[in-house]
Amino acid sequence: MTLTVLFGGLPEERPVWGEALRAAPAGGPDVRLVMAPEDVNPTEVDAVLYDREGPVTEFARYPNLKAVLSLWAGVEKIVGDETIAVPLTRMVEPGLTEGMTDWVVAHATRLHAGIDRHIHAAPGDWNDWRPPLSRHRRVGVLGLGELGADAARMLRALRFDVAGWSRRPKALDGIDCRHGDDGLEAVLRRSDILVLLLPLTPAPENLMDARRLGWLPPGAAILNPGRGPLIDDDALLAALDADHLSHAVLDVFRQEPLPVEHPFWAHPKVTVTPHIAAATRPETASVVVAEQLGRLSRGAPLRHIVDRGRGY
Amino acid sequence: MTLTVLFGGLPEERPVWGEALRAAPAGGPDVRLVMAPEDVNPTEVDAVLYDREGPVTEFARYPNLKAVLSLWAGVEKIVGDETIAVPLTRMVEPGLTEGMTDWVVAHATRLHAGIDRHIHAAPGDWNDWRPPLSRHRRVGVLGLGELGADAARMLRALRFDVAGWSRRPKALDGIDCRHGDDGLEAVLRRSDILVLLLPLTPAPENLMDARRLGWLPPGAAILNPGRGPLIDDDALLAALDADHLSHAVLDVFRQEPLPVEHPFWAHPKVTVTPHIAAATRPETASVVVAEQLGRLSRGAPLRHIVDRGRGY
Repeated sequence: MTLTVLFGGLPEERPVWGEALRAAPAGGPDVRLVMAPEDVNPTEVDAVLYDREGPVTEFARYPNLKAVLSLWAGVEKIVGDETIAVPLTRMVEPGLTEGMTDWVVAHATRLHAGIDRHIHAAPGDWNDWRPPLSRHRRVGVLGLGELGADAARMLRALRFDVAGWSRRPKALDGIDCRHGDDGLEAVLRRSDILVLLLPLTPAPENLMDARRLGWLPPGAAILNPGRGPLIDDDALLAALDADHLSHAVLDVFRQEPLPVEHPFWAHPKVTVTPHIAAATRPETASVVVAEQLGRLSRGAPLRHIVDRGRGY
Repeated sequence: MTLTVLFGGLPEERPVWGEALRAAPAGGPDVRLVMAPEDVNPTEVDAVLYDREGPVTEFARYPNLKAVLSLWAGVEKIVGDETIAVPLTRMVEPGLTEGMTDWVVAHATRLHAGIDRHIHAAPGDWNDWRPPLSRHRRVGVLGLGELGADAARMLRALRFDVAGWSRRPKALDGIDCRHGDDGLEAVLRRSDILVLLLPLTPAPENLMDARRLGWLPPGAAILNPGRGPLIDDDALLAALDADHLSHAVLDVFRQEPLPVEHPFWAHPKVTVTPHIAAATRPETASVVVAEQLGRLSRGAPLRHIVDRGRGY
């Protein structure tokens, strides 16, 4: 059986994705890859590769659709879409996870080692302040899914003193894993550097409100490569301005691109990165897509199916 | 037997070292710790804890000296001192190694992830450039001693594509280890990020001269937390100005503190750190000192004795 697969990514991404998908390992299913919705008879589409920003957003017009494979890890924009009557999968692929961990490690070690003072050093500033050893730096990771667990493990490998928090109990070697409300408070109260890697649903909006930001130790820093609404923006700015927090590195925002007039941009204690931490990498993700299409082709259950009830 | 041990570190470091040395594990040798040379009869001194900047630099005046324990890893200033007729040891302690690796990881991941562009971002700059995955970034480490091997292993744990070079053959899991002149050229030609962790002796001064800097791939970056004279400063500036190299992070210099008028300070592609990467940490080093003094006390051979012929 030949599967007709419609690429739903952005038009400018068609060349790189087309090349990667066609280069996926041999021995996979027989696939007819269509790169644009206008190039296919809707009745022929078996699967859609979905991008929240892309041109394919209505699924009722594909009567023979068997699956929607999100090209991204986050599925908030689509999870409530009732026109999708078929399995919806989120993207779990090593490139996305590795790139996220790279971002987390670069910024966590930057803040740990205090390298900004050297990047901005005035000539002749020979102040030999040294950071503590990483083994004496307490890092907290909220969220221990694919992304959070990988970041937590890597920070532990770097010898940081790592605690993690998740809604349900988890266990990771060498990491102090907590859960529940009490666990959240315990992790926040001991995190010199806090990394937010929770999915938005069902984590409450403004999880990091003024009260919980206040639980962080004085001088703590916060990294948010997870979801913009996890933080109460005004409470964060207040905590930075009051010198309770030393720095925030933010990759995700309520409105993207972050408007030029937003106070995060010019704030000396905020680093803005333009939603780059979690990126599906075509060269690694195409292998995962091929594997999923193979399952679809032979009637095997897809991996990473979104649980509509939980929302992720 | 009680050992009389003279602390030769800087006067301002006496409090922290005194506390750490007195807190060293129980069960060690019986030690009379003297914090300043003027407080002891020279004939009574059994061992000196040596600091190149400290007040104890002539050893002939201690006729009963049995060992000189350097508080630092580098012993260039003392290795040729013919007044030392007793074993001289260099400092190998986990805090120094861990701190060095922290420095290397912070700057290597900074340059890998290109975070300076975000630290310096203009408001509204929503350029979604993403770095390659660490698995596609080639890092080279010159020197695979205690420090180089630890840094290389950690960079490998971060999934970088790591090659290492040492004078004599070495083997490290997951790292492409090379040696000899051919090996050096091979490592340089594939290092997007190069880390210098060679001892100065007997590595030649200006090992990284114009020719060898030219072997690095275009756009490569160089980190030097090893020894200042390993790099030809003028050749480095020329390679940066010609856009052959993208950045240099330098922790060690021919003259320290680095003079305020030195072009490294104001160069936009150079980050100066004030010789902070390799720091003996009293809290961990004092445990090593106690262990060495225990060996001295019971007549066992000291560890990490400097080979005067090799110079380290």
